[in-house]
Amino acid sequence: MCGIFAYLNYNVPRSRKHILDTLVKGLQRLEYRGYDSAGVAVDGGNDKNWDNNSKVIQLIKKRGKVKALQDEIYKQDSLDFDIEFETHVGIAHTRWATHGEPNAVNSHPQRSDKNNEFVVIHNGIITNYKDLKKFLESKGYEFESETDTETIPKLLKYMYDNRESDEISLSTLVERVTQQLEGAFALVFKSVHFPGQVVGTRRGGPLLIGVQSKHKLSTDHIPVLYRCGKEKKAVSTLPRVDGDTCLYPIGEETGVEYYFASDASAIIEHTNRVIFLEDDDVAAVVDGRLSIHRIKRTAGDDPARAIQTLQMELQQIMKGSYSSFMQKEIFEQPESVVNTMRGRVNFDDFTGTVLLGGLKDHIREIRRCRRLIVIGCGTSYHAGVATRQILEELTELPVMVELSSDFLDRNTPVFRDDVCFFISQSGETADTLMALHYCKERGALTVGVTNTVGSSISRETDCGIHINAGPEVGVASTKAYTSQFVALVMFSLMMCDDRLSMQKRRQEIISALRTLPDLIKEVLALDDQINSLAHELYQQRSLLVMGRGFNYATCMEGALKIKEITYMHSEGILAGELKHGPLALVDKLMPVIMIIMKDPTHTKCQNALQQVVARKGRPILICEKNDDESKLLAYRTIELPHTVDCLQGVLTVIPLQLLSYHLAVLRGFDVDFPRNLAKSVTVE
Amino acid sequence: MCGIFAYLNYNVPRSRKHILDTLVKGLQRLEYRGYDSAGVAVDGGNDKNWDNNSKVIQLIKKRGKVKALQDEIYKQDSLDFDIEFETHVGIAHTRWATHGEPNAVNSHPQRSDKNNEFVVIHNGIITNYKDLKKFLESKGYEFESETDTETIPKLLKYMYDNRESDEISLSTLVERVTQQLEGAFALVFKSVHFPGQVVGTRRGGPLLIGVQSKHKLSTDHIPVLYRCGKEKKAVSTLPRVDGDTCLYPIGEETGVEYYFASDASAIIEHTNRVIFLEDDDVAAVVDGRLSIHRIKRTAGDDPARAIQTLQMELQQIMKGSYSSFMQKEIFEQPESVVNTMRGRVNFDDFTGTVLLGGLKDHIREIRRCRRLIVIGCGTSYHAGVATRQILEELTELPVMVELSSDFLDRNTPVFRDDVCFFISQSGETADTLMALHYCKERGALTVGVTNTVGSSISRETDCGIHINAGPEVGVASTKAYTSQFVALVMFSLMMCDDRLSMQKRRQEIISALRTLPDLIKEVLALDDQINSLAHELYQQRSLLVMGRGFNYATCMEGALKIKEITYMHSEGILAGELKHGPLALVDKLMPVIMIIMKDPTHTKCQNALQQVVARKGRPILICEKNDDESKLLAYRTIELPHTVDCLQGVLTVIPLQLLSYHLAVLRGFDVDFPRNLAKSVTVE
Repeated sequence: MCGIFAYLNYNVPRSRKHILDTLVKGLQRLEYRGYDSAGVAVDGGNDKNWDNNSKVIQLIKKRGKVKALQDEIYKQDSLDFDIEFETHVGIAHTRWATHGEPNAVNSHPQRSDKNNEFVVIHNGIITNYKDLKKFLESKGYEFESETDTETIPKLLKYMYDNRESDEISLSTLVERVTQQLEGAFALVFKSVHFPGQVVGTRRGGPLLIGVQSKHKLSTDHIPVLYRCGKEKKAVSTLPRVDGDTCLYPIGEETGVEYYFASDASAIIEHTNRVIFLEDDDVAAVVDGRLSIHRIKRTAGDDPARAIQTLQMELQQIMKGSYSSFMQKEIFEQPESVVNTMRGRVNFDDFTGTVLLGGLKDHIREIRRCRRLIVIGCGTSYHAGVATRQILEELTELPVMVELSSDFLDRNTPVFRDDVCFFISQSGETADTLMALHYCKERGALTVGVTNTVGSSISRETDCGIHINAGPEVGVASTKAYTSQFVALVMFSLMMCDDRLSMQKRRQEIISALRTLPDLIKEVLALDDQINSLAHELYQQRSLLVMGRGFNYATCMEGALKIKEITYMHSEGILAGELKHGPLALVDKLMPVIMIIMKDPTHTKCQNALQQVVARKGRPILICEKNDDESKLLAYRTIELPHTVDCLQGVLTVIPLQLLSYHLAVLRGFDVDFPRNLAKSVTVE
Repeated sequence: MCGIFAYLNYNVPRSRKHILDTLVKGLQRLEYRGYDSAGVAVDGGNDKNWDNNSKVIQLIKKRGKVKALQDEIYKQDSLDFDIEFETHVGIAHTRWATHGEPNAVNSHPQRSDKNNEFVVIHNGIITNYKDLKKFLESKGYEFESETDTETIPKLLKYMYDNRESDEISLSTLVERVTQQLEGAFALVFKSVHFPGQVVGTRRGGPLLIGVQSKHKLSTDHIPVLYRCGKEKKAVSTLPRVDGDTCLYPIGEETGVEYYFASDASAIIEHTNRVIFLEDDDVAAVVDGRLSIHRIKRTAGDDPARAIQTLQMELQQIMKGSYSSFMQKEIFEQPESVVNTMRGRVNFDDFTGTVLLGGLKDHIREIRRCRRLIVIGCGTSYHAGVATRQILEELTELPVMVELSSDFLDRNTPVFRDDVCFFISQSGETADTLMALHYCKERGALTVGVTNTVGSSISRETDCGIHINAGPEVGVASTKAYTSQFVALVMFSLMMCDDRLSMQKRRQEIISALRTLPDLIKEVLALDDQINSLAHELYQQRSLLVMGRGFNYATCMEGALKIKEITYMHSEGILAGELKHGPLALVDKLMPVIMIIMKDPTHTKCQNALQQVVARKGRPILICEKNDDESKLLAYRTIELPHTVDCLQGVLTVIPLQLLSYHLAVLRGFDVDFPRNLAKSVTVE
């Protein structure tokens, strides 16, 4: 839930200003991951010989967004910003508080002691931190923050203070520390005792490394080094790191720069050559050479980490002319939905074939399964709910849709003949990732549905669908939802392409997919009308969103959007449950948004509408253009174009995305950075 | 959702006051089914010859509860209350509005015309009423109300006006009318053209008939009569109704009284001999003789309706010393839970056997099934959610828990090897009943879990569990929930009694069942403490209830209770989803109730607690007595005794039941009759 960024320049002279600007810019790219406080650690001192400066680490931390940190940095009178470093390591962090409230002391980097001998940035939660803290306090180490993280640098210092030899390497120390940690983490370390070196490691949290050099690199597959483990000495010192076992620029006096980050958006403007770390990898850079270590080898492990080339373009993550990323992403949906379908749905073909490349080797096995389980959190879960009915209809299989955390809490029975889908925009959602591990252990076939190539979920599943919606920066997910939705509908079409009895239905859906982008544009054209509705509603405290059938998910997703960014208490309610309790809430004062589409639930929805009206409620209707009968009873109406029942939810959610956006603006909140929330939830 | 009551005395002289009092009392027993308006129809006029009075029907209707109707009745100066009727038919209705707001015109009985030639009481919804209305208007019939019901007496008059012969019977006319109706209904008719006669029929709505006579009755199995259907004459006149084909008191000048009602609670104080009607039965009383007709015979139909003897005692439905039924029912839970287990769990047996008599013939088949589907609405659905995990654990089967309406909307795939559970306190919940029909058609084994012997669900399922919680009158379900919960846990124990590996777990649960009633008493003893908490909270508008794992259902159920009777916007939130949106709602002002028990989710719940505290929330904790660590972070604490994880939800829900009760009282609302809601939802 936090953002990690580190920058190492080796034999590439850089001014302190350049280094700090690089760190700040990296954090700004990661700000969507958390933004309640931020901090950096760089070499201090102003000695002309940069080497001397690495004996002192300067920490600068500030509550608030990265901008506040940037201002704080340039207030530091003690720093000469023009001084140049031939080699330097800087680490930086943007935080989303879990343990301890947002303030400077609780921000990262966290340190080992008042002299900043060891500093660390951390994304994740250490679950056994209380035990570790008790132990370290008994050894005389003093704590200053309320964080779980602070135990890590202190434990590192304890390991260092009790080292058996001065030969010991930073990566060995880090390995010893991580063996004591329970929980999920990605970590990057810097130390005055190991100048010019950086070590990063992960377990459960995402971490990747970007490499940039003007020179040719020694390898594009970095072999993993394993500790021998037999003798004390072998454990405590590094194995030989030379040309065969590490990455470095070839030639004499050659330079290289490394970027460690939680995700590629912070790296892509510097380099597109990246290495994704696996759980328990320890990556160390010493003298500009990157090596990757693991304690021991397990059968089936990949023996090397490849340098991959990213295709993402930076401009994709720029806001453009919109006032916020979220608004931009809502208006991108006509294009993002096309990108999801591109090359996958053949509209010209008379029979309308759908081919998802990532599934084609597994589709026969999937068709033979006994059950589909669709697993996700938040918006991704709603995408599963939205498509459950069409999955059931076209596959004729039982379909369960599960919240990742509840699925894990319940130790849900999973079998070899189950097929499990894991939906996550970032592909790093901690609970969903754990559910994936849980299902893999039980032998189920696993399918990822993510927006992030190279993410943990996309790497660890047997097969999958990339939804190709493009980077999503707004914390409140919008275009990822509609693309997940369309991706799952495409999957259900692919499942039944051989079924004669379903061809008519398939044709109907495929035709609707073809016109969907234009219909989305029609809905987006209602923006002004929805803005004026927002003006009427923005001072309300509560808001109910009701619907059923194919549009139940829209109610939950719409209510979630409103919750997330407007802080109004909105709730999605199944219209069929109205009389079993929620109707008691309806009176003249409670705003009720009702979704009534011309699908098989139309009459039942009208019944619900009648009841709300009978109770003096003033329903705001999201309905189809020609539904004059329903409109008669409505207080306000938003009229949408018609599409096939199972895709109608793509259209009905958009007015609610727009409404939440306008409500948040009117209420004066930062749309892209809602309080208390972060984009990618990489802890449980 | 409405209550129907009719009273016929034949050859039993009764004063008009006695008749009206009987009707009003009947309605009061049914008031929990609806109470926004009420009405009666009785014979008018004050002629000494009672026979003449039956030429005029007097309608008295009033908006509000039954008490308001009672006051209105005794304001009628035109009526002589002392006049005696040897034979008389009175019908009465308490309404819960679906079409048209609550007022006198929309109340029942609805009438055919200004002369009240035909009057009807109706429970249900006529879905094709618009078409019927258009037809009747085209024929010159004028409508006065906004109800769907009004089409019924008008259609009846149309049939009567166009009769082919004066020989036609009321039951034939009713049959012709019901053949034109779509939807769900229970109906009772009275007419000036058929004095001293009453006709009742049902399709989808519940209807039963009580019989009382000082004389021996002609039969205890009333044979069903079928229309021959070949000749016009045969269709239009009644088949011969004599000693073999109808029910009547034997002897000359013998008297009899009949009571038609939506459920037994309105009849039991008069008689315990009752006949349950089946869908499409038409029951007619002519000259004190009850006969039952059907259009045509279908293979497998029961050829007779038996007179059954009810065991329910009236005192069971009296409030006792409590201020409301709901409060009484909350405090009954130590006993109701014992009643659910009585004779089913053998605590003395070393191996702890559990035997549910209603399932024993089917348990082998159930064990062989491929999947359990648990279906219900509102609170009954929550009972399924609450026990899902233990069902999964002890049966090792996939378990799906479904909201009835959504299950139907989705046309969920159901197979022959599925076992489907239908949970409903009343056993009449319309959506759940329809889901039952849906699953039966698809060949699944069906299991009822109801609190009402003789209810539609308990009669139509293959087998089932009566939860034996005793009558529940409060609209907000309390003791039925905990009894449903315990019943499903008992079922899961029965499913695994032969599994060696599960004996330890079974023992643990069975021991916990034994102590459960005492622990419930301990929780109820916290009433004062919860009352004082209610004093702090009752002016709030919103309230969040958070938990996970075994206690997720408690959050949803607790939030529903609060919604239902306090009209505060409360919402149950899965603590694992906190970071995916709901955390944005948390600030200093939003009250948050958190459930943290010492079960496998304890650490994760504490994480959630930490986050709420970090966001300045002031959590009200429902936790275990010795959980000192969690208590440190709480703003307020409610401490509960410990029991086994899978039964903890029975204890955690009680503080929320009590809290909702006290909040409603403090907010000045009628706890037993929340606005807009009715006890038993017998329409979709």
